[in-house]
Amino acid sequence: MPRRVDHAQRRRQITDASRRVVARGGLEAATFQAVAAEAGVSVRLVQYYFGNKHGLLVATHRAVIEDAAGRFGPGGTPPPGAGAPAPRAVLTAVVGALLPLDDDRRADAVVLAAFHAAALTDADVAPDELLGAPRALVDLVAAQLAAARAGAGTGLDPDHDPDGDPGGDPEARLDAELVLAAAAGLTQGLLAGHVTRQTALAVVDRLLDRLLGARDATP
Amino acid sequence: MPRRVDHAQRRRQITDASRRVVARGGLEAATFQAVAAEAGVSVRLVQYYFGNKHGLLVATHRAVIEDAAGRFGPGGTPPPGAGAPAPRAVLTAVVGALLPLDDDRRADAVVLAAFHAAALTDADVAPDELLGAPRALVDLVAAQLAAARAGAGTGLDPDHDPDGDPGGDPEARLDAELVLAAAAGLTQGLLAGHVTRQTALAVVDRLLDRLLGARDATP
Repeated sequence: MPRRVDHAQRRRQITDASRRVVARGGLEAATFQAVAAEAGVSVRLVQYYFGNKHGLLVATHRAVIEDAAGRFGPGGTPPPGAGAPAPRAVLTAVVGALLPLDDDRRADAVVLAAFHAAALTDADVAPDELLGAPRALVDLVAAQLAAARAGAGTGLDPDHDPDGDPGGDPEARLDAELVLAAAAGLTQGLLAGHVTRQTALAVVDRLLDRLLGARDATP
Repeated sequence: MPRRVDHAQRRRQITDASRRVVARGGLEAATFQAVAAEAGVSVRLVQYYFGNKHGLLVATHRAVIEDAAGRFGPGGTPPPGAGAPAPRAVLTAVVGALLPLDDDRRADAVVLAAFHAAALTDADVAPDELLGAPRALVDLVAAQLAAARAGAGTGLDPDHDPDGDPGGDPEARLDAELVLAAAAGLTQGLLAGHVTRQTALAVVDRLLDRLLGARDATP
């Protein structure tokens, strides 16, 4: 189905352009004109694929979230080190993937901050459309924490179901909320420049020490 | 000096209005016209006090930060309970004061989120002007953590210097960064609606348990 592939590529080309425009100039900058010019396509094509600005913004947000999920999901890059990584290493990689430590992730974090602020005051960006991703992340991190505590399973096991219900461990869910809140706060601090990269990584390390015991204690 | 007092009141009247305008419509909404109308004063008066939009925004941001500092500073309301509160209670109150758990704090948190997003893409809001507050907060929380661990001093002791250097305890500084990152992340989650009030308070409690030991262990 070559035509379908073309559609997906075209949409991706436009949302990639939209992300760059928002990262540079905020959500207000993402007009159809600016995004079409950045993507090198016509305004009419942007309208064809996304209908209105709301549709374009929702697709832009979704593209950022899907890329983030891809960074630490089953298809993501495993953390450095040969063989099956220890659960602690998997968690460090998951949290590290959430922090804006390279240009791409920094740009994405700026885009997400713009969406967050806009959703609080702008009826055009409905907050309920932005809610799916955080919930899925809590499930993922809770499952990794539960696995790390059980001292079994690496989280990169192909049979491991990242959508599995960690509901049996409410403490893991609460700890997952803590991990994700810390990652979101560190992201804010890194972007604003009042937290250094070194401090952010040390804080993550310290939090995982508190939650899982010192590194030597993990298998 | 009645004239000076008038000036301060007038500036306050205008920054209060500016905060309401930004909380409703984001930073773009904070035009001189809109802020003057909200404050019930002339555009000329806003110009007289703040010069340009940059000056108005900087003053607006400072007013939010000063109110936040007042909520848990030496002049702030002590946590509930008679007598000198335990260090753990002081820390709970400090972190609680940072979370958007009432209408005023929610409005302020929306204003701060708008500033954060704008500073990342808009040259008119210089990020270095927004940096003083987070640094002062780290010092304050680090000092409270060190006091709580020492099992001495309540942090509300009038002789206690909240600006005192907790640099002798680098672990307390790192833990303070963690506490503040978690509070910032929980604030984001509360505003966006993907963290409930109950979860936020449970996460704070759990974090303080991890940092200070369970509640019963504190004096």
